[in-house]
Amino acid sequence: MSERRRDPVSHEWRIFATGRQDRTYLPPTDECPLCPSVPGAAPTEIPWSAFSVAVFENRFPALTEGVTTPHRDGFFALAPAAGAAEVVVYSDQHDATLAALGRDRLRLLVDVWAERYAALAERPDVQYVFIFENRGEAVGVTLHHPHGQIYGYPEIPPAARRELEVARRHLGEHGTCVSCDVAARERSRGERVVVQSDCFLAYVPFAARFPYELHLAPYRHVTSLLHLTDAERDDLASILQRVLQAYDALFGFPLPYVMAVHQEPVADGDWRSISHLHFEFTPIHRSERRRKFLAGSEIGAGEFLNDVAPEDAARRLRTAVPAMGAR
Amino acid sequence: MSERRRDPVSHEWRIFATGRQDRTYLPPTDECPLCPSVPGAAPTEIPWSAFSVAVFENRFPALTEGVTTPHRDGFFALAPAAGAAEVVVYSDQHDATLAALGRDRLRLLVDVWAERYAALAERPDVQYVFIFENRGEAVGVTLHHPHGQIYGYPEIPPAARRELEVARRHLGEHGTCVSCDVAARERSRGERVVVQSDCFLAYVPFAARFPYELHLAPYRHVTSLLHLTDAERDDLASILQRVLQAYDALFGFPLPYVMAVHQEPVADGDWRSISHLHFEFTPIHRSERRRKFLAGSEIGAGEFLNDVAPEDAARRLRTAVPAMGAR
Repeated sequence: MSERRRDPVSHEWRIFATGRQDRTYLPPTDECPLCPSVPGAAPTEIPWSAFSVAVFENRFPALTEGVTTPHRDGFFALAPAAGAAEVVVYSDQHDATLAALGRDRLRLLVDVWAERYAALAERPDVQYVFIFENRGEAVGVTLHHPHGQIYGYPEIPPAARRELEVARRHLGEHGTCVSCDVAARERSRGERVVVQSDCFLAYVPFAARFPYELHLAPYRHVTSLLHLTDAERDDLASILQRVLQAYDALFGFPLPYVMAVHQEPVADGDWRSISHLHFEFTPIHRSERRRKFLAGSEIGAGEFLNDVAPEDAARRLRTAVPAMGAR
Repeated sequence: MSERRRDPVSHEWRIFATGRQDRTYLPPTDECPLCPSVPGAAPTEIPWSAFSVAVFENRFPALTEGVTTPHRDGFFALAPAAGAAEVVVYSDQHDATLAALGRDRLRLLVDVWAERYAALAERPDVQYVFIFENRGEAVGVTLHHPHGQIYGYPEIPPAARRELEVARRHLGEHGTCVSCDVAARERSRGERVVVQSDCFLAYVPFAARFPYELHLAPYRHVTSLLHLTDAERDDLASILQRVLQAYDALFGFPLPYVMAVHQEPVADGDWRSISHLHFEFTPIHRSERRRKFLAGSEIGAGEFLNDVAPEDAARRLRTAVPAMGAR
């Protein structure tokens, strides 16, 4: 079963991909499918013996290239699970972390993301390109080798749609981009800023959902990675590295997190003035030993509870940011 | 810090309660705060030496009685974390489970829920009464003694608001309650039905978010527990018991889940024709040994991925439902 179904009560679409139920699950290191292929051993997903960054289609995809047209089954609406599901392997080193790979690799990764954004934008079954990373077993990672993913959704997903609606309203009322306004306010207030660079600001959001949530956005109104200048891409690689190193230093272990990149939809429409590129990091720890769980309030009511003041989280994260200039 | 803050980018309100960071965490059995108080030992949260069902205010509340009026801090909107946070202890037996307590206790619990719904509806700081249970350490439970919770939110929470919007549109287009229509369709289709009774239907939703998600709703258009007849309350206690026993039998261990009850908002407004009482159970397992994680797609994009076909889940759950008549 590979299908999208619309919930009749919330009108949200959900993706069903039962082939994923048997996907590779935490294989031993010598059977890692994301390591390079070596002579004399069974080939991995990646045919080369060495590589920098590799991108390929997920072998257990949630979405596959195809026709997106929905149809009805009596009362219910459904559609093929069309779209893209790609894997982005950050390194050929099995035990590497993104933070430790260095700025050049991060800069290359920014270029790869931008290129995949442009490539997937061309596909008729893709309306929204969603770059993300799940890091750590605690967020459900099934392969340890450092990697991220890219989904090409056949719709603008609910979280992005809600942001765009608010941004459209804000533009109508104030004539400005709400994310530009937020970045300017956070920069001048300073109390939630974690680290800043020439072009980017990393801050704990005013109404963070997760205790150590962090958003990273350019001051300039840039709609996607594709529209960053060369200098901005260098700057992004550098501040991304500092954020990732701060997360690893915060509690002294690689912090499990979800990283989500929000960009301009690639669907037809007038999105330019209301789309503002930003990264959302949502680590799931509320302290060194305790996790934040999504439970009754979040899952049942959609209302987030947070036990850590964003200003305190920002203060702790600031002290974990490494001094500039390393590597 | 006890505060509600509105996220400027999504316009969703989030609750901050930093006092909860140090809440009691998995205490040893002989220090359980939800057990009865016994002579010669320090008193627990419950002053009696025996009880059936006990309700009291959460000692580490997310919301506390007060004024809900929001104010602005320059660009940002915030408000006191006003509302109610109650604990509902299901039994004075520390190791009991709701499924094993028997129908009479479940019937009493239904009455207690209905009574609290009515009582909290009177409070000016409560706009929506949300009854829920987090069961199991895997969903973040911090006390093992069987209990649920009731939040009195000072707003209609996002998930309920979205449902009500869809129901309002459906009513306008079709002249019917969408949840009445869903229950009638599911009943006649049968393929996703888990168990049915005279007044209630338990089914895996057509577009379930979680593999073994189950919704339980009356056929009749009832807006809240308060409006159930005596016979319907008996019937609800009975089918609730069968659902809970099916969950415990499915994989042979008490299945961790979130249970959420959706009812008519108690805020001013015309909600009657678009509110349909229902229970949503969202267990977090996708198989005996594997969990479903909320990760990139769900947290970052709001788009749910499910690896189990709802029809298969319903078939498995049906076989786990105990024969009628026990206890």
